[in-house]
Amino acid sequence: MFSKLRRLLIGETLSSEQLSHEKFSVLWGLPVLSSDAISSVAYAGEEILWVLIPVLGLASYKYMFYAALCIVFLLFLLIFSYRQTIDNYPQGGGSYIVSKDNLGTIPSLTAAAALSIDYILTVAVSTSAGTAAITSAIPALLEHKVIITIFIILILTIGNLRGLKDSSKIFGVPTYLFILVVGIMIITGIIKYYFLGYTPSRQVIIENQQTLGNITMFLFIRAFASGCTALTGVEAVSDGIPNFKAPAQKNAKIVLGLLAGIVLFIFGGLSYLSTLYHAVPSEQITVLAQIGTQVFGSGFMFYALQITTALILIMAANTAFADFPLLLSFISRDGYAPRQFSKRGKRLSFSNGIILLCIAASALIVLFGGKTHALMPLYAVGVFISFTLSQSGMFAKWIKEKTPGWRHKAVINGLGALVTFITVIIIGATKFVHGAWVVCIMIPVLVTVMLKIKEHYNRVAEQLKLTEELRPKLAVDLEDKCKVIILVDSLNKSFVKSLNYARSISGNITAFHVSIDNEETEKLKRRWKEYDAGIPLVIKHSHYRDIYDPLITYIESEEYETKPGETITVVLTQFVITRWWHNVLHNQTALFIKNMLYKRRNIAVVTVPYIIEE
Amino acid sequence: MFSKLRRLLIGETLSSEQLSHEKFSVLWGLPVLSSDAISSVAYAGEEILWVLIPVLGLASYKYMFYAALCIVFLLFLLIFSYRQTIDNYPQGGGSYIVSKDNLGTIPSLTAAAALSIDYILTVAVSTSAGTAAITSAIPALLEHKVIITIFIILILTIGNLRGLKDSSKIFGVPTYLFILVVGIMIITGIIKYYFLGYTPSRQVIIENQQTLGNITMFLFIRAFASGCTALTGVEAVSDGIPNFKAPAQKNAKIVLGLLAGIVLFIFGGLSYLSTLYHAVPSEQITVLAQIGTQVFGSGFMFYALQITTALILIMAANTAFADFPLLLSFISRDGYAPRQFSKRGKRLSFSNGIILLCIAASALIVLFGGKTHALMPLYAVGVFISFTLSQSGMFAKWIKEKTPGWRHKAVINGLGALVTFITVIIIGATKFVHGAWVVCIMIPVLVTVMLKIKEHYNRVAEQLKLTEELRPKLAVDLEDKCKVIILVDSLNKSFVKSLNYARSISGNITAFHVSIDNEETEKLKRRWKEYDAGIPLVIKHSHYRDIYDPLITYIESEEYETKPGETITVVLTQFVITRWWHNVLHNQTALFIKNMLYKRRNIAVVTVPYIIEE
Repeated sequence: MFSKLRRLLIGETLSSEQLSHEKFSVLWGLPVLSSDAISSVAYAGEEILWVLIPVLGLASYKYMFYAALCIVFLLFLLIFSYRQTIDNYPQGGGSYIVSKDNLGTIPSLTAAAALSIDYILTVAVSTSAGTAAITSAIPALLEHKVIITIFIILILTIGNLRGLKDSSKIFGVPTYLFILVVGIMIITGIIKYYFLGYTPSRQVIIENQQTLGNITMFLFIRAFASGCTALTGVEAVSDGIPNFKAPAQKNAKIVLGLLAGIVLFIFGGLSYLSTLYHAVPSEQITVLAQIGTQVFGSGFMFYALQITTALILIMAANTAFADFPLLLSFISRDGYAPRQFSKRGKRLSFSNGIILLCIAASALIVLFGGKTHALMPLYAVGVFISFTLSQSGMFAKWIKEKTPGWRHKAVINGLGALVTFITVIIIGATKFVHGAWVVCIMIPVLVTVMLKIKEHYNRVAEQLKLTEELRPKLAVDLEDKCKVIILVDSLNKSFVKSLNYARSISGNITAFHVSIDNEETEKLKRRWKEYDAGIPLVIKHSHYRDIYDPLITYIESEEYETKPGETITVVLTQFVITRWWHNVLHNQTALFIKNMLYKRRNIAVVTVPYIIEE
Repeated sequence: MFSKLRRLLIGETLSSEQLSHEKFSVLWGLPVLSSDAISSVAYAGEEILWVLIPVLGLASYKYMFYAALCIVFLLFLLIFSYRQTIDNYPQGGGSYIVSKDNLGTIPSLTAAAALSIDYILTVAVSTSAGTAAITSAIPALLEHKVIITIFIILILTIGNLRGLKDSSKIFGVPTYLFILVVGIMIITGIIKYYFLGYTPSRQVIIENQQTLGNITMFLFIRAFASGCTALTGVEAVSDGIPNFKAPAQKNAKIVLGLLAGIVLFIFGGLSYLSTLYHAVPSEQITVLAQIGTQVFGSGFMFYALQITTALILIMAANTAFADFPLLLSFISRDGYAPRQFSKRGKRLSFSNGIILLCIAASALIVLFGGKTHALMPLYAVGVFISFTLSQSGMFAKWIKEKTPGWRHKAVINGLGALVTFITVIIIGATKFVHGAWVVCIMIPVLVTVMLKIKEHYNRVAEQLKLTEELRPKLAVDLEDKCKVIILVDSLNKSFVKSLNYARSISGNITAFHVSIDNEETEKLKRRWKEYDAGIPLVIKHSHYRDIYDPLITYIESEEYETKPGETITVVLTQFVITRWWHNVLHNQTALFIKNMLYKRRNIAVVTVPYIIEE
């Protein structure tokens, strides 16, 4: 039944030979790899205003513009740094790989932990922001936002478990549509304001302007830190180089350049429109939607804006669904994460990673009530830590290798590392009490867990290693023939089947019965006499209605005469039932005993199936 | 870890010898066995008013009194009927047993289904009414009523899993306190009204008296049907006869008589007080609490009333926790319910039945938002069906056996059967659309399920029956020696252990490897050559990253040369990990394959444990 449901949702199992990847052209690589970066402008400007408006009121917009300028500067620095990564890691230069190569284990695990946290947050933030775009257009849905967001996450999970073909055309269209619609809005908005004399409604502005404060350095830094979420997703291009058509590295660099241009245009344009139209962040309607209503009215274009915003945000979440399981599979292959994460599922996707992401992101959504703004203090710290480690890794590489032109390149990556490091400190410090502390605790915890996992795998490997002395026995003398115990509940066909099987593997068989119900035991004794099985029957009484303890006590007693180190075989009958719900009708005693017996070094458990026909 | 938690909540395992039952005197048997019956008056009067007040307004109280009279008449009829059951079933005459003895399988299963539903409803109704008593005293808790009710159910569940000693003193005190407090209230209330000239507040009465209707036959019958919930729990005494001190039957009859007197006094008294003090049912405050505030003010006695009401209702729910698992164990012993329900748990209680009751009652509480009034339409139908079947069973007994004085006795039980049957029709009809239809559907569904279960057990027993021809083989010739396949993943110590074990049971061993990762397979091939195991290695490629299918294909292929009917032994290595969380670090492949292999008639699975040290 479960497997039917799975097949319906996930589809038929795919063969390993069907694994393939589409190669991107610049035209379609751009929208697929940049949806995360571009979509983040849908909430980054709003985050700056959340910081400034309550203190500065109408004066906020001026400083918002300055903060946006700083972020754009940071963007260009990152772009130059990443161009060098692309040149040097044609197989994909994620932060984990770059820091593993150049900085060592702990930094690479730190990058892995930071990135993992951020992928989870990308899904939570993007889907909740996508829901906010929907509820801004249809306010009646506002009260259901948690359910809508989790529904979106589930759809993405199922889609990714099915292994959505990397169809760049389907995934690319929403990004281009979003760029188009926002582009139209920016131009229309400026024209409407300057040439058609539109006066923005100010009813939303805080009433008592007199209670407001003044700009301070700390306030501006907080605004800048909040806006840095605009830069999340920039690293995606350098991760995805192997997916580009040849010349892959050149194409990747072109895409990176175009990405920077688009982010500059949209982020700058939207910040400018916020200023003109006095948008004020609120939990009911997004800043983007506020601008949209004023520029477009409530007609077709407004809904087009909300729909494309929702779609690009969902695409952004989808990139995390592609990247997080892949990152986990790298970590897992290195032995720092459970091995299951490196195994491909029925549909060739890394299903365990996808499911983990779904659970973690859904938990965050429920915990934070689906509010994008509430999730923000946790976001971006991880991204900037991974930026810093990636750039530091590149810097270390130049210093070590000293290839031609290394000084120039080291300066760029070094500057990148320095600036992103400062940004980490800024973001961490300003958002610490609001939630960044969770991330600051989680990263070392995750690193420790990963180290412990590696340690465990190493220990297991050590214990399993074959040594020269451990040659297999090529022949077995009679002394080593195994001794068998059959558990008997009552005399029936299944017991006879088990007994016949036992005879085929051993000449030393004992039947063992644990008496719980006196009546049943008497019946068994009576029937045992009538029925000549030719083996001894041992009966032990159990005071605690339990079979395991009397069995072990018997095996270890002198009565049974076990040689030290000898392996005893216990034969159990497994009833096999053809309908799953029949399982509730049978005591799962055999199963319980089996699971207990596994823990004994000297006991091998044989289950002989007995099929109950319907 | 789980077992530690269980020990903390439930306690240490008890030995079968510790099973014992306290015997009741009349003094302490009365409160223990009657808490269900007595406590139901806490909501029965209110239920009558829910029907009448919206139509009749102030005129309701007159008709409430008539309805109460009818119910009291029914009560006395039941008492006389049940006295005869007590005489004839000294081992306890529950409806299931009486109808099984005298009416046959289907009626007894109908009684079992009806009773099971009603026990679940007793828990749901009593705990939610108990919570209503608490929230009437502390209105601030009203919004948490679902959580409070489920908390009470959980406490009862844990208490019963621990196997609360049947300590009649602890359980009896709340009942006596309730009788005492309500008795004081009835007397004080009458004195206050007639002699101290208290005028009841009428602010709660519906304002527009003019829109009200007149009494109709149908309305009165509905009111009567709603009040019948007062009679639930009367059958408890006849179930509990074996628990009485000698002379058990005489004592039980005395208790039954006293029970009738107490219900008459409290139900009559409370109905009369409702009339005097114009109580109006509401979802915020119970009728009992409304009367209590007016009679006692809001001092100590009011809180005493609410606390004792809550306690006696919780005790009533507790009796269902004692009786439902016992009933299930009877049904289960007869083969109509899963066998697990007749096994005693760690603490000698029928734990599975207790847990089922907890889940079912909690589900009802959540589904109906913890509102007592909303649950009522489902209640009482089952009780009266079981009354009817029990009385009909007694009637059939007299007709069949014709013992001295049978005519007289047959008239009493026949009248009981007739009147309770008419009541079933009345309750079913008037409450049908409000929820009784659920019960009317559930009973035949449950009966069908129980019959199917019995059918399944019969079929299994038939298939397991030993026949004369099926003698066990006393010796095994070499032809019948078993063939062994060892699954090999990589060459390590655990493989050597499994191989050595395989050699002790067979001389025909094949190593089998499924290739999923080409690299790993090449490594295995290389090492296999170096390492001389002395057995053939078969390698098959799996396209779907799955081990089961290639293995089965190989076993069934001509290559392996299986004889028809031959049992093949598959040896698997089971890694045993000393810390539970290490399980997530290892592929559970062995476990999956094992569970698949069990379904094959001709494959015995051996698991050889390999313990990984910490």
